[in-house]
Amino acid sequence: MSKTIAINAGSSSLKWQLYLMPEEEVIAKGLIERIGLNDAISTVKFDGKEEKQVLAIADHTQAVKILLDDLMRLGIIKSYDEITGVGHRVVAGGEHFKDSALVDEDVIQKVEELTLLAPLHNGANAAGIRAFKEILPDITSVVVFDTSFHTSMPEKAYRYPLPSKYYRENQVRKYGAHGTSHEYVAQEAAKIMGKPLEDLKLVTAHIGNGVSITAIDSGKSVDTSMGFTPLAGVMMGTRTGDIDPAIIPYLLEHSDDFQTAEDISRILNRESGLLGVSEVSNDMRDVMAAMEQGDAKSQLAYDMFIDRIVKYIGQYLAVLSGADGIIFTAGIGENDPKVRQDIIRHFEWAGAKLDASKNEVRPVKGLISTEDASLKVLVIPTDEELVIARDVERLKK
Amino acid sequence: MSKTIAINAGSSSLKWQLYLMPEEEVIAKGLIERIGLNDAISTVKFDGKEEKQVLAIADHTQAVKILLDDLMRLGIIKSYDEITGVGHRVVAGGEHFKDSALVDEDVIQKVEELTLLAPLHNGANAAGIRAFKEILPDITSVVVFDTSFHTSMPEKAYRYPLPSKYYRENQVRKYGAHGTSHEYVAQEAAKIMGKPLEDLKLVTAHIGNGVSITAIDSGKSVDTSMGFTPLAGVMMGTRTGDIDPAIIPYLLEHSDDFQTAEDISRILNRESGLLGVSEVSNDMRDVMAAMEQGDAKSQLAYDMFIDRIVKYIGQYLAVLSGADGIIFTAGIGENDPKVRQDIIRHFEWAGAKLDASKNEVRPVKGLISTEDASLKVLVIPTDEELVIARDVERLKK
Repeated sequence: MSKTIAINAGSSSLKWQLYLMPEEEVIAKGLIERIGLNDAISTVKFDGKEEKQVLAIADHTQAVKILLDDLMRLGIIKSYDEITGVGHRVVAGGEHFKDSALVDEDVIQKVEELTLLAPLHNGANAAGIRAFKEILPDITSVVVFDTSFHTSMPEKAYRYPLPSKYYRENQVRKYGAHGTSHEYVAQEAAKIMGKPLEDLKLVTAHIGNGVSITAIDSGKSVDTSMGFTPLAGVMMGTRTGDIDPAIIPYLLEHSDDFQTAEDISRILNRESGLLGVSEVSNDMRDVMAAMEQGDAKSQLAYDMFIDRIVKYIGQYLAVLSGADGIIFTAGIGENDPKVRQDIIRHFEWAGAKLDASKNEVRPVKGLISTEDASLKVLVIPTDEELVIARDVERLKK
Repeated sequence: MSKTIAINAGSSSLKWQLYLMPEEEVIAKGLIERIGLNDAISTVKFDGKEEKQVLAIADHTQAVKILLDDLMRLGIIKSYDEITGVGHRVVAGGEHFKDSALVDEDVIQKVEELTLLAPLHNGANAAGIRAFKEILPDITSVVVFDTSFHTSMPEKAYRYPLPSKYYRENQVRKYGAHGTSHEYVAQEAAKIMGKPLEDLKLVTAHIGNGVSITAIDSGKSVDTSMGFTPLAGVMMGTRTGDIDPAIIPYLLEHSDDFQTAEDISRILNRESGLLGVSEVSNDMRDVMAAMEQGDAKSQLAYDMFIDRIVKYIGQYLAVLSGADGIIFTAGIGENDPKVRQDIIRHFEWAGAKLDASKNEVRPVKGLISTEDASLKVLVIPTDEELVIARDVERLKK
């Protein structure tokens, strides 16, 4: 009866999932939103039911208290003692955290220091960790980093062709993101492909509102599309991905919109991508609906989105000197057969071929390529919370 | 006895090459450097000899006069009438110039307007055009753009995932560069491969101090690595190529070196690339020499350089859904067998295989892949001046 809770804290939110471990069974899950406001919302899902409350929640410590109260009140647990572990997702682990880690004061301080690299996230993550430490000081507490999986990248991949001083003095290098997702889907894919992960070269495509593509050799990340920050790589819902960096000084000099560093970050991170090109929405479903109605800007946004993903998969096939499989995951990757088809038709020459009927099944899990495809294509629903719960189990003393 | 002169004007220089056309025979060539100074240098090479003068040259008009005087004085021409055409290389043709064009006042004004997109180059190019117009007003004068070849790119390739207003109002899109070089080597490759260019899919790799990679389908550029400016794409001698754009606002806030738009442009364009990482040189020969002496930073710079080229070739194989050939050209691409070998070993899975003995020949021209390679590899020495001279012939009335 060992229960582990996986926590994903945002600046004003706290997502959680309660597992029975080591059975890996989800007992309940929920989301606390609008932390800091008088009309915060706590949602709990369990036993096929959904409970929702609106109430004032001052901070992450109070949010954790309310979450634990809810678990007791709704009879999901009978005493706090049933919870033996908690795992916290942390966005930025920098170069320091090459694996998940047991929480102590040093670790919390390090997470707070790394706020520099993820201003919107690491502070909230640390607040969530401190809240649990205060209320349940004796349970196993583990931090799981979005970046750890990518610390295996070789230096040629993680360094930028900038003067080296900005690496040495400002920690400017590629860290990547979505590490738990890429790691999880690669492991699951190996099981389905019936080969040890150590014998496989894979390209994993996490395609949701955020998009990242990773080249995985023998289970290790050797390159990934997100960079110093999650802005880099592929075009996303509201993010540009890679652009000619010279565009920034040009717009600083020629557009009134670009005055400060904050303007650059805001426009490239929040006003670009599918939204900026389609002028319809940052949500692929809206863009595709508009495109089906004949909206040319949405068609362009869709075509650019596919183009950028094709380019990253192509470059990682080259980095890996060929691969055994391409894995789709996350919101769009798991749920959109047209996106997968429009991507994979660029790789038939490389041995990938979709089985159209398998690709159309919803929901789909497993192989969607034809029997004779030499480059397999799979869909694996990602489960970042499960990776967190597993890491708590693994690190328990 | 029709002679055509190809001109490549820089901000303080003027490179020229005199052809007998349509024989395509080089009669003489030269370089005028340090225009604007009292100790400018004019070098002329012809008949295996080299002539050098040091003298004051105020501006491009005077440079053109000196060049023509030299041709007479050295007996290379007997009268100005022998020169029937001049072709000028222009860096930025924007969206306007989809082909080379006969020069008239409108064209010169348009080239001057496009200075916005290439501040260091188009002004000098226009000065060179005006100088010839003044001195030889009646000969055929043609402008040949670095960008024209890339105007065939589809919108999904040339648009950036920025808000569309920056395309509509600020002309921010991908223009590419080295167009004459990519076009020329693709044409030459088709001859060697014995197939019409229309039936071929090629990836051309122009690897010199500047580097650009292009995907060519049926003789048309469908994508290229340089972007809004020649900073984008692959790591170069002193240029970063693509980096996470979020690095710029981060360094604006965290490094004293980054204060203005000019700082960003200078550091990314002139202090980065091989130079910034190796801290030895922007010249690949120096970097490789240091690397052979065991210098770790030079080794890293070299490895990163290869890595970025491999990634662009890989992505263009995907864009083209497979290709028939990879073409190397320009300073490094033509002259460095190790660079070619380190790149091509990433594409053996895709059917490319070097013939080691052919690859080692210097100078080399033509196929360097094995007989059975399904993805051919070629080296084609580029000749941008010849493309200019040919375009003058083609557009002559």
